[in-house]
Parts: sequence; C-alpha cells; structure tokens
Amino acid sequence: MKRYEALAQEIAESIAHGQWRPGERVPSVRETSRSRGVSPSTVFEAYYLLEARGLIEARPRSGYFVSPTLNWQQEPESSRPVTKERAVEVSELVFQVLGHAKNRALVPMGSAFPSPLLFPLPKLALATGKALRRLDPWRTVEDLSPGSAALRHQIGLRYLGMGCGVDTEELVITNGAMEALNLCLESVTQPGDLVAVESPTFYAALQALERRSLRAVEIATHPRTGIDVAALAAVMERHPVKACWLMPNFQNPLGSLMPDDAKQALVELLARREVPLIEDDVYGELYFGARKPRPAKAWDRAGGVMHCSSFSKTLAPGYRVGWVAAGRYAGEVAQRKLMSSLAAPLPSQEGLSEYLEHGGYDRHLRQLRATLAQHRHSTLRDIAKHFPPGTRATRPEGGYFIWVELPPRIDALELHRLALSQGISLAPGHLFSADHRFKHHVRINFGHPDHKNFHAALKTVGTIARALAA
Amino acid sequence: MKRYEALAQEIAESIAHGQWRPGERVPSVRETSRSRGVSPSTVFEAYYLLEARGLIEARPRSGYFVSPTLNWQQEPESSRPVTKERAVEVSELVFQVLGHAKNRALVPMGSAFPSPLLFPLPKLALATGKALRRLDPWRTVEDLSPGSAALRHQIGLRYLGMGCGVDTEELVITNGAMEALNLCLESVTQPGDLVAVESPTFYAALQALERRSLRAVEIATHPRTGIDVAALAAVMERHPVKACWLMPNFQNPLGSLMPDDAKQALVELLARREVPLIEDDVYGELYFGARKPRPAKAWDRAGGVMHCSSFSKTLAPGYRVGWVAAGRYAGEVAQRKLMSSLAAPLPSQEGLSEYLEHGGYDRHLRQLRATLAQHRHSTLRDIAKHFPPGTRATRPEGGYFIWVELPPRIDALELHRLALSQGISLAPGHLFSADHRFKHHVRINFGHPDHKNFHAALKTVGTIARALAA
Repeated sequence: MKRYEALAQEIAESIAHGQWRPGERVPSVRETSRSRGVSPSTVFEAYYLLEARGLIEARPRSGYFVSPTLNWQQEPESSRPVTKERAVEVSELVFQVLGHAKNRALVPMGSAFPSPLLFPLPKLALATGKALRRLDPWRTVEDLSPGSAALRHQIGLRYLGMGCGVDTEELVITNGAMEALNLCLESVTQPGDLVAVESPTFYAALQALERRSLRAVEIATHPRTGIDVAALAAVMERHPVKACWLMPNFQNPLGSLMPDDAKQALVELLARREVPLIEDDVYGELYFGARKPRPAKAWDRAGGVMHCSSFSKTLAPGYRVGWVAAGRYAGEVAQRKLMSSLAAPLPSQEGLSEYLEHGGYDRHLRQLRATLAQHRHSTLRDIAKHFPPGTRATRPEGGYFIWVELPPRIDALELHRLALSQGISLAPGHLFSADHRFKHHVRINFGHPDHKNFHAALKTVGTIARALAA
Repeated sequence: MKRYEALAQEIAESIAHGQWRPGERVPSVRETSRSRGVSPSTVFEAYYLLEARGLIEARPRSGYFVSPTLNWQQEPESSRPVTKERAVEVSELVFQVLGHAKNRALVPMGSAFPSPLLFPLPKLALATGKALRRLDPWRTVEDLSPGSAALRHQIGLRYLGMGCGVDTEELVITNGAMEALNLCLESVTQPGDLVAVESPTFYAALQALERRSLRAVEIATHPRTGIDVAALAAVMERHPVKACWLMPNFQNPLGSLMPDDAKQALVELLARREVPLIEDDVYGELYFGARKPRPAKAWDRAGGVMHCSSFSKTLAPGYRVGWVAAGRYAGEVAQRKLMSSLAAPLPSQEGLSEYLEHGGYDRHLRQLRATLAQHRHSTLRDIAKHFPPGTRATRPEGGYFIWVELPPRIDALELHRLALSQGISLAPGHLFSADHRFKHHVRINFGHPDHKNFHAALKTVGTIARALAA
C-alpha cells in the first residue's frame, strides 16, 4: 500500500468512527502534513482519493469538509434472528419476485448482477478467440474436472497476491460460484443436516439449502462487521451444525466486512469443532478501501475452509467460470463435479487464462472499484434525500449492494410491486431469510452507474416509500 | 433419402438378416439393376456406399462379395438381469478404473470420448471469436437459464429436421448432457425412488442415481434392438418405477437401436402409467444407416419424455453445451438449472449458434459418420482375428462403442489391469451394472481412427485375452 493510500485509509477510519462529523471541516493539507510528518503532495493525493470515494468534498477557498450527506442516517442494527432450526422454503417467492430480472427495460435495482457494461467484454472476446485458435485438441479430454491447469495456475497466483497460500491441487474449476457452492454443500452434508447462515442471507444460498433438503439456522449479523462469532459459537453449543455458509467479505445483502480478528476467531472456532466453512467470496475483489480484504481461508490451517469465488462479478459475466479452493475436501468436490456436469467449459477457461496472463485484470479492477465506490456515494446521497424519515441504510465498503431498512409500516413486497409498475425492480427483504423476517427491508443494487434513469428511479422509489409510510 | 441410399439400406438389411452369408457373392450390378428396376449407376452408388461401410467388398473381375469377416462371430444375447431393486454403488470403481482416462499416452479404448481430432475445433474457434466480438453485453443477463434464444432456435430447427416437433419453450440449455440428466432426475424423483435402466447401462447414469440416493432396477436389453418393452411393462406391474432412464439410439455400451415400433410402444406404456422417460440421445446423430433414427420423443404426446442431448460427442467436446427438451417438466428443469449453476456458458453458446447457422454442421456430421462406420468395420475385423474363440461382439449401427463378451473364464478387471500395463485402457463390464454382473465383458471405443497404435493395441488385448482364456 502506498503512503497516500495508507493516510487516506486512516482518515477514512477516523471519519467512520465519528472523529469528524458530516459537514465538519477536516484539517488543512498543511496541518495534516505537519501532524503526520508526510509531504503536502502525499496529503493532497490522499484527499483526492477520499474525495473520489465521496467521503470528503473540497469547497473553494475554504478547504476540505466531511461530505454533509455522509452518516446522514443511521445504519441498521445487528440482526437478532430467532435461533431456530428450520426447513427452507424460499424458492417459489424468489422465482416469483425475480422473474423480471432479465427484462432490460427495467431499472435493475433488484438485480443480483452489476451492469454488463462495466466489463471488458471485447478484450475477453479477443483473448478467447486467440486462445481457442491455438488450442491443443487433447485439452478437451485432459481438462475435465478439476479443470484447466493453466487457469488453476493463474488463480493460484492471485491467492499468493492476497497473502493466502493455496495449493493448485485443491482448486476445482466450476460453472460459476453457484455450482461451487452446491458441490461443497453436497460434499459435506446429508439431506436433513443443519447449516448455519448469516441473517439476512443471500437467497440463492437458501435455495441451495432447500434444493438439498437442508435445514438452516440463522445467526446474528452486524451490517458493518458481519456475523457475530460469539453468537455462532453459542448456537453451535446447542445445535448440531454440520456446516457454515458465510460471506465474510461484502456480504450479500448487507455489504458487511468481517474484521481480520473475527475471521481468525471464526476459523479457529470451526476447526475446533471440525465443522467445515463454505466461504462465498465473490465480492472480495470489489473493495473500496486501500487493500484487498483477506478471506477467512487465509487463517485456515486444517483444510476445513472451502473458499468459493468466480469471475462473474468482477470480469466475465456469462462466462460461467468459478472455482473452489476446497482444502481437504478437494478430491470429493472434484469427483462430484465430474458426476454432475463433467467439466467446466473450455472456451471460457481458455479465454480467462489468456486474459489473466496478458489482459490487465488488475487495471480493470482498479477502475471498476473506483466506479462502484463513487456510485455508492451518489446512491446513498439520493437515498438520504428521497427516502422517508426513519430509513436506515448500510454503507458498504465493497460490493454493490445497499441494504435499506425502511420504516416498519412499509411492506417491502408492496413497495416492490408498486416500483415494478413504474419500471423499477427491487429485491424485497422477504427473500433473504428462511423465516421471511425482513419485511420492511430492500436490497438496492448500485452497480449500474451507467443507467441513465437510475437516480430518477431512486427518487421514484423514495416517493412511493414515503406514501406507504404516511 | 436418395434412391441409391434406400437401395443400400435394403441390401444391408438383407445381409443383416442372413440372406447372403459372409464371403458369398452378392448379385452383380446388372442383375440388381434388372431385378430392382433401377439404373446401373444407382446400383453402383449403392454398392460403393456398402463398400465404404465395410459390408461388401469388390474383387477384381469377380464382382462384389459380402465381407468375409462380417458376422464371423455371434452377437451377445439379450441380457437377463435379476429383477431386483437395488441401491447403486459404482462410483468408487468407476473413479478407480477410469482415473487413467486423461492420460494421452494410453491407447484410449476405455475412454468414453471419441478422438478430439475428429472435430472442427479451428472452425469453432473462429465462430466463437466472431460471435463474442459482436456480443450485446446485456445478453450476459438475458441468457440465464433456460439459455440463449438463438441457440435454442437452432436446436429447434434440428428437431424439425428429424421429424420431431419440439417447442423452443421446452428447451433448456445445460452444461452438457450430463447436467441435463441430473436436472431431469432431480425434477422427477425423490431420494430413495426407483428408476428403471437398461442392462447393461452407462456407468455415469448409475453414478447419477447413486449421487441422488436413487435405487435402480435393470431391464433385459437386446444388443441390437435395445430394451425389452414387454419386460419393462412386467417389471412396472410389480415395482414402483418412478422414472426410466434409457438410450433408445445407440445405447452406451451396447450400441443397440430400438426399432420405431418399440419406441412407440415404450412411450405409450410410460404415458399410460404416467412415468416420465429421461431419454439420453447423445449418439443419435452418429448413425451409419441411411437415415437418422428418430428419438422416442417423436412419439410423445403427453409431454412426458425429457429428451437430452449435447454437442459433446458430435461437434464440440469441451464446450459443455447440452440441452433437454423437457416437455411438461421444462419449467421445473429450468428453475433447477438456475438453482444449481445459474446458466450455461455464453462463449460456448454463442460459438455454437454461429457455427450451426453458418459452419456446415451437416457436412461435418456426414464425414464423421463415414469415418466411424469404416473404423467400426476394421475394429470388428481385428476383434475377429485376434480375440479368443467364443468371443461375441455387437455390431452397432451407430455411435463408437462395441460391447465384447469374452469367454466366461476371463475376468475383465484383470484384462483391464494387464492391458493398462501395456499402455492400453479398457472399460471393464463391471462398471455397467449396479450388481457388477458383466464380469467377462469389455466396452471398446473405436472412435479413435487416427490413433496409430489402435490396431496393434487390439491385437495386444486379444493376445492377453487368449492367454487368460487358456
């Protein structure tokens, strides 16, 4: 991390902890240069970075101020789910509500995908064409599960870069992270087993549990720091948890990020109890801070963490390439991959290998993160402006979801229906829990910065919500 | 079908029914022209075709003769499985035995794949590159399950061409036929249910049953005409069969082909009992006769046939594109696809759409069929020459597998081990039944005509088998 990035990070944390309030002046460049013992140009660069992230703003001839819209409203509190083992039945509702997701005429606030225009698809097309033209035909046989050796090598290099050694041998390429998740569940559970998840949790994970007739127990989760490890430990004392499915980095829908010590405590707790962790880390690369957060897998010594990720949210939507670093379950997962769909697609694997080696993935990621961070800022600003009093919103430090808690009178399903009639999709909170408890919550996807009607649509949703709250 | 093709077909059937024996002279061109009332040039073309298929051979100044190696040995008889519902446990053995399949140094007689050199991979590379370069980014969202509209349209056209109308709406694109099979099983069974399969049956189908904790009942199957529909009906009287998984066209491993009336009887039987048929038709395009055999789906009126196929064996290995025309289960299958792996890979789907529209698939298929038919002939000839007396072999009219029944003293697993030590893979019969009954059988893959050591390897296997039989 460069010096100005470190400085920006420190100042961002001071703001987050309330040292300076929204609208307050931050120290001048000269003051900060003196107090921190760094050059004025370093401070300037740090302030530019903070400005780009929407944390501070420059006022001509007055200096820098904490953005007045920041912290305008409270964040939601930690969830307090009822600790109960329950069968999962969400699929019908999910299909009903999200059946519209594919309609490009809608403003896709309810979508699970960021805008496809954010990705270097033309470059990937060239890389794929090039790689396929020189393909050795025998690779069609040799690259059956666990997948292309070249791609696994490239993925292994990225683990090294994030300070998390992973053996190429434990990597299994899958048809997206969704298949990885399903194969992991299949490898470590039997129908009827109990799986611990966050509260709220991503509906597709609930669907995967439902598909395999698994039961869920939901654990208290804080919108900023993620799952409460002590609460999980307490639940595990009394319930036969067979696996955990969690998103430590930029959880969907909360956007929460577990601190390093919580990740370490989580991994140690699960290792002691010999309970595997299925870690879904598809948003880990989309951080807005100065450094990529490490996965829980980085603290894994016993091989019990199955780290799942993909390129679908960061580089290549539609290519359907994900993977799992499955630790001691790698052999089992690879066999189940063979039995369920034999292999991952070669054109996608070849194209991604080629791109990762030569295409400038990190450059693309830097731009993508900056774009998303900026749009998070303007989205939060508009929520502040248009949504009814009493609204709470998360302030994610990565990913592209904001979890909005509306006044309790508002039924999110009704809001969803009314928004849909105005050409706007929303993901109502009902989808994110086995007991449908988040009835006045919505997940808003701000990963569509290029959508010309996005901000007008936010205003429309706010207007409808105000009417429903009245 | 052209006139000379019809004539060739009639003569082939006469030979198959023993009207002329191996080594016997067939009527001269002039005689046939007169007796059939067709022009001599039509007869010539028919004879050339029969010669190319290895059924007859020309001897200078003597005329045409039925190939002396033809019919040299008996075919295996119909299987007579013990009718018993049983749990399936084959996976361990399959992984043990076929773990070597990926080693390109082996002569791949045990492989499930034809030679990758048989496919137009460079043309597909160009088609894929071209299609991806002009891709509308929104397709990455819109082409989620059930899959690319363009590709489904192309597949729909091919159904029309085979005299089997299929609604594009019932097509779901999958990651190969293997995923289609698994999704179909998931859609129509619960763990513990009973599924009827052929005897012998493809081990991957047995693995799919095992994966879902299903039980199997194996039905008598004839090596030429496929499953015995009367036997199936009798089993269904006494056992609660919930679904059938069958390969009416060029069954793996037998190569059997159900006659049209048997297919019709099968579909009617299952419709009466409201039992769904999962029809695996991945070899249907690889016919050696004059006409593509229709799938059982062609007789389906009630929407109970789920017709699964793919491009993996006919065009694009490694692309992982299959599909299912799932009749009345289409919605259920598409949802399960969404839940298990979200979507099929876009690069593969785009490349195949483009190739199917412009690339000359039918031309490629004609050449592929001719190549395989010819190599079947030389493989049967060498089995006749080198294998021990008492050996029986199927004479498939399509696909690329020959099922060989060896003298009962030979243990196929031992033969497999000894062949492996000589650099040759084999698929022992043990893999093809839930009760491992085919202990002196092997499946031989003749889909590797370009392999320079194939015929030497057949001789080696024959020599080992003779030693074991002695």
